[in-house]
Amino acid sequence: MTSFSDLSNLYKTELLENIVPFWLTNSVDMENGGYFNSLSRTGEVFDTDKFVWLQAREVWTFSMLYNKLEKRKEWLEIATVGAEFLLKHGHKEFDWYFSLTAQGEPLVQPYNIFSYTFAAMAFSSMYKATGNDRYKEAAQKTFTKIIERKDNIKGEWNKAVTSTRQLKSFAFPMILCNLALEMDEIIDRKFQDEIVSSMSHDVINVFYKEELHLIMENLNADGSISDTYDGRVVNPGHSLEAMWFIMDIGVKNNDKELIVKAKNISLDILEYGWDKKYGGIFYFMDIKKTPLTQLEWDQKLWWVHLEALITTIKGYALTRDKRCLDWFYKLHEYSWTHFKDKEHPEWFGYLNRQGEVLLDLKGGKWKGCFHVPRAMFEIYRTLESLKG
Amino acid sequence: MTSFSDLSNLYKTELLENIVPFWLTNSVDMENGGYFNSLSRTGEVFDTDKFVWLQAREVWTFSMLYNKLEKRKEWLEIATVGAEFLLKHGHKEFDWYFSLTAQGEPLVQPYNIFSYTFAAMAFSSMYKATGNDRYKEAAQKTFTKIIERKDNIKGEWNKAVTSTRQLKSFAFPMILCNLALEMDEIIDRKFQDEIVSSMSHDVINVFYKEELHLIMENLNADGSISDTYDGRVVNPGHSLEAMWFIMDIGVKNNDKELIVKAKNISLDILEYGWDKKYGGIFYFMDIKKTPLTQLEWDQKLWWVHLEALITTIKGYALTRDKRCLDWFYKLHEYSWTHFKDKEHPEWFGYLNRQGEVLLDLKGGKWKGCFHVPRAMFEIYRTLESLKG
Repeated sequence: MTSFSDLSNLYKTELLENIVPFWLTNSVDMENGGYFNSLSRTGEVFDTDKFVWLQAREVWTFSMLYNKLEKRKEWLEIATVGAEFLLKHGHKEFDWYFSLTAQGEPLVQPYNIFSYTFAAMAFSSMYKATGNDRYKEAAQKTFTKIIERKDNIKGEWNKAVTSTRQLKSFAFPMILCNLALEMDEIIDRKFQDEIVSSMSHDVINVFYKEELHLIMENLNADGSISDTYDGRVVNPGHSLEAMWFIMDIGVKNNDKELIVKAKNISLDILEYGWDKKYGGIFYFMDIKKTPLTQLEWDQKLWWVHLEALITTIKGYALTRDKRCLDWFYKLHEYSWTHFKDKEHPEWFGYLNRQGEVLLDLKGGKWKGCFHVPRAMFEIYRTLESLKG
Repeated sequence: MTSFSDLSNLYKTELLENIVPFWLTNSVDMENGGYFNSLSRTGEVFDTDKFVWLQAREVWTFSMLYNKLEKRKEWLEIATVGAEFLLKHGHKEFDWYFSLTAQGEPLVQPYNIFSYTFAAMAFSSMYKATGNDRYKEAAQKTFTKIIERKDNIKGEWNKAVTSTRQLKSFAFPMILCNLALEMDEIIDRKFQDEIVSSMSHDVINVFYKEELHLIMENLNADGSISDTYDGRVVNPGHSLEAMWFIMDIGVKNNDKELIVKAKNISLDILEYGWDKKYGGIFYFMDIKKTPLTQLEWDQKLWWVHLEALITTIKGYALTRDKRCLDWFYKLHEYSWTHFKDKEHPEWFGYLNRQGEVLLDLKGGKWKGCFHVPRAMFEIYRTLESLKG
């Protein structure tokens, strides 16, 4: 068993010598501003479309590293290249498009709430890094838009006839828990407390179902389970990611009970979501074991496993529950064996159920400069606190 | 090598003694009308939502069998149960919802053109079976709506900023080729000829790219290839299905050249789409071999293989090209080994790349009473014509 100190160094080195250089070298579009999102196994740009939520995530990542790890000038410069591109091209009165051409022309309408949430996170972080009021204003105005869309997050592109069936999505309270913490210096303290407490309540007491020991992805408006395709879905990775957001809230509010609850839920989800045959965590599951509509349900995705690593190591650091550490080692072994590319920089994102590489991209429409570096940073920092 | 006569009997028997009884027994909702679409491996209803395009496909299938195979009263009765449910609940002035509750309340707005095209097919076929003018009117009014939506098939739910990039989809001319033939007695003969000739021209001369020997799923408005995620996609099953629609047009118009062209294109697509490692035809491919956004790209789907079986046997029957027959036997072997459920009725729909069952449903959101029975019927009839 490797020491916490060696493990901490491993994650820090992976971040600084493998992951960060990959994005610095390959993703920046010096001609147009912003970043190329679609990068092959070896880092070549294979498609030039720019996905706003991934642009914002990369701005967040580089400015976060600047704020929290080291004041490296090049990190802030790279973050600024993306932030300015987004301010200029990414939105129309802070309604954020989903995607843009390389030059910044809008390609897909602002249908996706995640374009907004990550823009708000990015500009908050940029404001912390620079004190620039343009960034503060962008973060605030975007946050207002998010709150306005609370009851219909898909806006005019919502295809559901909501008078017949209106489901509420776990994604919204889950992401707001994280976002409200991230926007520390941007939004009013009292408002922040209200959001954090109401959203963490929704996560822990509404979407988490005691009788199932699981978190539902969608619920009826009254909080009950909907016996429908969307209503039966569990996304273990999503649930696990939310649990470390909740642990962070527990730390901030010195709420030990909340932390223990999130830790226990995480252990149940891991037990449920782990593939006993091939290892790894399933992408989607159905609480009644009926067939899913998601054809990718049995695939193993990088972010699921990296978020689970963060959750288990934080769970251990905060509660010293030995089961968290056992899971951390198990996930560590699986992830470094299967997701790390031993020949080229950055990690694979998509494996089949058996753990073989399904798509060898390093960046694509849904994988950017975010989960890998954030996880490396969070895990290294948490392990460092355990070195003792 | 089994004789054409034995093979013909095999497909006919599978249709009449396995497939048709499965849907007759398990799918009909005698209480509300319409059909249950979500059926487990053994035929239990696991979800009660009703998908309009699948409702319409089942109406078409039973009325088509009544029209073309045998005037069985129960087939027409079952088709009528679906047709009346659809007329009452499925649309708002012939704008067809995507899905309904079991009782017929609308769940998802009319965003999907396939709800329309299969409604038009279903009511055409019902008119042929009954001579009922209500069905004729439904088919005609729906067809008018389809033509109106020609230039923006997603209607108000289109998320693309079309002033920046407007792609045209292969699905539209492809389905219209089939639909126009199906609507023989419903639409004006001259109009039908125009549509068939213009749509088959688009398929063969615009979407088919001579230099690649492939059919593109999406093209720029000017017909050129778009080097974007959507623009690089090939769907071999979709291409192969279109080729037997084109062969049918060739037969109708006595156009031998068109038939040979469709046959040759089919052979190229099969060569390209066949998985040399595990067998079967890939679901999605990328002409530049760059990573796809479709995580299910390597899966083996029932309809792809069944459509390929129809195309190859028709190709052989019409041109006597021995390569078509070789492919037919190869596809027959793969399909009966992997898709046919040896323990329970109907066929599996979704296999992983290795050919193992990924989802064991017999009916779901995208699999209904359509491709399997249609293929059994078309193949049995074509083999029968070869017996002589």
